Amino acid sequence: MNEFDIIKHYFTVASHRKDVVMGPGDDCALLQVPPNTLLAVSTDTLVSGVHFFADMKPEALGHKALAVNLSDLAAMGADPCWVSLALTLPEIDENWIEQFCSGFFELAEYYNVALVGGDMTKGPLSITVTVQGTLPAGKGLKRSGAKVGDGIYVTGTLGDAALGLQQVLGNIAVPEKYKEFVCHKFEHPHPRILVGQALRDIASSALDLSDGLVGDLAHITRASGMRAQIELEQVPLSDAMQNTVSQEQGWELALSGGDDYELCFTVPELYRGQLETALANCGVKFTRIGRMYSGEPEVELVFEGRPYQLQSQSWDHFRK
Amino acid sequence: MNEFDIIKHYFTVASHRKDVVMGPGDDCALLQVPPNTLLAVSTDTLVSGVHFFADMKPEALGHKALAVNLSDLAAMGADPCWVSLALTLPEIDENWIEQFCSGFFELAEYYNVALVGGDMTKGPLSITVTVQGTLPAGKGLKRSGAKVGDGIYVTGTLGDAALGLQQVLGNIAVPEKYKEFVCHKFEHPHPRILVGQALRDIASSALDLSDGLVGDLAHITRASGMRAQIELEQVPLSDAMQNTVSQEQGWELALSGGDDYELCFTVPELYRGQLETALANCGVKFTRIGRMYSGEPEVELVFEGRPYQLQSQSWDHFRK
Repeated sequence: MNEFDIIKHYFTVASHRKDVVMGPGDDCALLQVPPNTLLAVSTDTLVSGVHFFADMKPEALGHKALAVNLSDLAAMGADPCWVSLALTLPEIDENWIEQFCSGFFELAEYYNVALVGGDMTKGPLSITVTVQGTLPAGKGLKRSGAKVGDGIYVTGTLGDAALGLQQVLGNIAVPEKYKEFVCHKFEHPHPRILVGQALRDIASSALDLSDGLVGDLAHITRASGMRAQIELEQVPLSDAMQNTVSQEQGWELALSGGDDYELCFTVPELYRGQLETALANCGVKFTRIGRMYSGEPEVELVFEGRPYQLQSQSWDHFRK
Repeated sequence: MNEFDIIKHYFTVASHRKDVVMGPGDDCALLQVPPNTLLAVSTDTLVSGVHFFADMKPEALGHKALAVNLSDLAAMGADPCWVSLALTLPEIDENWIEQFCSGFFELAEYYNVALVGGDMTKGPLSITVTVQGTLPAGKGLKRSGAKVGDGIYVTGTLGDAALGLQQVLGNIAVPEKYKEFVCHKFEHPHPRILVGQALRDIASSALDLSDGLVGDLAHITRASGMRAQIELEQVPLSDAMQNTVSQEQGWELALSGGDDYELCFTVPELYRGQLETALANCGVKFTRIGRMYSGEPEVELVFEGRPYQLQSQSWDHFRK
């Protein structure tokens, strides 16, 4: 099969979305945006050897490439609609492409996201995904809305993906019974779409955790112009984490490890009850881990009321 | 500078577009789509060593990365609005980034396109751009609308970019007085936005020429279910082409060379007069080069009424 046949065979999937006037195969996709909505757009690239191992299972890679992008829509509180996929491959390996598509489209169908276009090119393996979603006019969970006194929350448990990575690298020996769990968290992050939607009228700010809590929360402190304080004893660690590493190591992984794709958000104290109600049906655990204070934008860690210093802070792709 | 500083310094450009509710720097961009419009979306990737030489001037690369995407909007007849840029770089070279941005933003400003987001990652040099534009509801120059009897047209002259490439490769010696012209056509393609907009109510089908006329026009024949006949004596060749290579070589470059980014479109005979009027103010030459016939979808070449056979057909990125 040549480039065009591959695209036709694997990437031309019928969608049930009526808002796709023209799907893949023409110069542009043509989409119908509902009236009184905002369009939310996000783009992420995954590069082989940087964001994933070259031998990562293609099914997991297809899932993850879409998941990390949907996670950005979740962090904005948007309804996912459409996706474009730019796939750069060293060669055409139909078996690989089929498995990649299986992971990609399983997640796309779960959220009723239609593939509307993209590109397939020859080159070192990398994937750029652009997702689009909609929001009611005037809504959107920005990073800049946090207020002094707001509680800081996260979904799920933190650091499990980083633990999974260390396990794969052979740096940390995870007990047999937890291996599957941490590998799954590392390879199959689940975007918190429902949580994001439920937070639309409640959270004052939000983002998704891709580079580690401390580094990511710092974006909220800068955009909102205030200080965040995290109480380490509140940071949610999984059983796998607690039964594998020391408390200090657990905090390191939870606070500076990347790839969690959980949401971190701030909520005014006044809305605490509403938050419980709104998230009750999302099936996702959430935890209050700190509070916003006035002061210079930075993330402060405390343990039993005393300041605590982390070894490493956040993931910078260009860091030596 | 780290990743975030670079993005802030070079890629956070103030836009005058009032429809950008949230630009780069949050989890998603938030955009306002006007009522009664369709959203047109297109994505293209350029990979170093495949689509451009690793030592291509970064200013030209920035221009071209955006131009080839805007060309897809032009082919649909859309008004360009927003762009996302995913840039994968082997290292941070601020001088390179500055020049890349200069080429990218000069073109973006020309068409009032706002950069609304993207990603910067470490890896082998490649660029994925996603552009978005709008169309009045019900409009859009699809590939599938050609009818038997429609004339086939192209803008500009064909093959000059391919001639520029052969000149750079040292395969063809272009006379000194034409070198700048062919290099410019190769490195600085100009998207035919105004032509696309002017064709909205006139053309029955359209696409942009990226892989060579014969291969690209074949998409229209398949989508529209009919045969295209091109009269070789009508194919517009530049002075540079005519004064550098033989007529046969000129046709080869014009019909199977890529990177022209001119528009190819079909127009019902009835609209011939309207076409002249509509394109009169675009400042772009256009030429009738053939006609659509009923029959199996294929592109037939004739010279003085006799069938003509090309050596090579179209550019396939995975072709050995």
